[in-house]
Amino acid sequence: MDIAYQGEPGAFGEQACHIFAPDAIAIGLPTFHDVFRAVDTGVASLGAVPAENSYAGSIPTVYDLIQQHRLRILADLLLPVEQVLMALPGSRLEDIDTVMSHPQALAQCDQFLHTHQWTLVSAPDTAGSARQVSQEHVFGTAVIASRTAAQRYRLEILADNIMTRHDNQTRFWLIGPPSVATLPGPRVTTTLLMILDDAPGALYGALKPFADAGVNLHKIESRPDTHPFSSRFILELEGDADEPSVAKALEAARLLTNRLTVFGSYPRVSVVLP
Amino acid sequence: MDIAYQGEPGAFGEQACHIFAPDAIAIGLPTFHDVFRAVDTGVASLGAVPAENSYAGSIPTVYDLIQQHRLRILADLLLPVEQVLMALPGSRLEDIDTVMSHPQALAQCDQFLHTHQWTLVSAPDTAGSARQVSQEHVFGTAVIASRTAAQRYRLEILADNIMTRHDNQTRFWLIGPPSVATLPGPRVTTTLLMILDDAPGALYGALKPFADAGVNLHKIESRPDTHPFSSRFILELEGDADEPSVAKALEAARLLTNRLTVFGSYPRVSVVLP
Repeated sequence: MDIAYQGEPGAFGEQACHIFAPDAIAIGLPTFHDVFRAVDTGVASLGAVPAENSYAGSIPTVYDLIQQHRLRILADLLLPVEQVLMALPGSRLEDIDTVMSHPQALAQCDQFLHTHQWTLVSAPDTAGSARQVSQEHVFGTAVIASRTAAQRYRLEILADNIMTRHDNQTRFWLIGPPSVATLPGPRVTTTLLMILDDAPGALYGALKPFADAGVNLHKIESRPDTHPFSSRFILELEGDADEPSVAKALEAARLLTNRLTVFGSYPRVSVVLP
Repeated sequence: MDIAYQGEPGAFGEQACHIFAPDAIAIGLPTFHDVFRAVDTGVASLGAVPAENSYAGSIPTVYDLIQQHRLRILADLLLPVEQVLMALPGSRLEDIDTVMSHPQALAQCDQFLHTHQWTLVSAPDTAGSARQVSQEHVFGTAVIASRTAAQRYRLEILADNIMTRHDNQTRFWLIGPPSVATLPGPRVTTTLLMILDDAPGALYGALKPFADAGVNLHKIESRPDTHPFSSRFILELEGDADEPSVAKALEAARLLTNRLTVFGSYPRVSVVLP
């Protein structure tokens, strides 16, 4: 089983691949768009993409890409994100003048970084930065990435748990073609798109079938719609679209919307970190 | 009238201040948190903060800060965001080896940046990067910032309109203490927070009064709630909380929620760029 993720070995996305499928071959690709395209064209069997982060919120690119591809969500997981500061073995904090990482990782550690006078260099990838510093023996440059990346590239951890918010976690989706079954386990979440008229009561009306059926709503987010008279919502419901009550609610809601697309009903995978 | 914004002179936030109030004294502060605190404590009369960007989505920090301060939204505006690449006068594109800017601006121009082999340096601020390159005569480093920043710091524009999405715009809120009146004009938008039980039908029930009153919903977003049995929504409605129909709907909704806080009913300020 091969699973594509955005980034390089040691990235949080690679960790997600191995939690979804412990014996997976994880394939790092440059962008989220590449991951969706690889799965859509069969270059990779599955993909692991971040849907939201407790610090940065929803990841709009991924929300938009799931709407543009005929892929399904097969599972999700909540990955605790610990950022650590690493550098070549033998380095001390006072040797560091530059810190390199993905802009999102730099942002997650803003309070820690502000206490030092470091030049911050943006790179496409957290783990890729670790690889570069390790391979090119860049002394004086530290990297922010995962503990896994430090191990993989034999860098020394100078400071751990450097995030501004310590409850930082990222939710990953496992995505695949419609022909692939979801992972085993109770399918507790259903994610869907509804396109409605931009009119008073439209959302209220479309939520009625779910309220009538006693279906709980985990998450709702309006998304930009290019059509001026319609509005677009991503919803996450508690339950499986194949349960009779949820199925009936979806069928009734479909009649009240201009479009209703279910991206999947899927289980949550437990994360046990070493 | 003084208005605080995040960043340095030449920042998009400074532009927003002068569109909200053409003769405003704009005060640049390091973080969004500083802007809210300055307005809350009276250090600044008002603040201008970005609420959402068409590329990056809602700005979670600002959504969280508005919930933590007793401030009101007095107006909003949609600012077109044009990013340009600038460097010391006389520079050519082939002289550049490093590009410095705010991570958000670097992300907005990712496709343009990927076509070159430049080192990308993250800085706290777009305009601050322009100031630094100008003041310190840093040859070989270009900056991504606004056209205004290029003019202010006498840098030469090497490439304009370099954003991946050309319809890129940022929505700014003008915030102030509850004692300050909203800007003149029809108060077309009302932003509010609702805290509900995390139970089936709770959101549906709370939206009923708005549907009954024919109030249209522009935007809805669930936000993380620290309490496990409650859920939190930010809503934007069409209309003024003081209109009888909206007021009646809000009063009815208040009885169905654990908390309902209106952050303001406010006009949209037209943006006429030079």
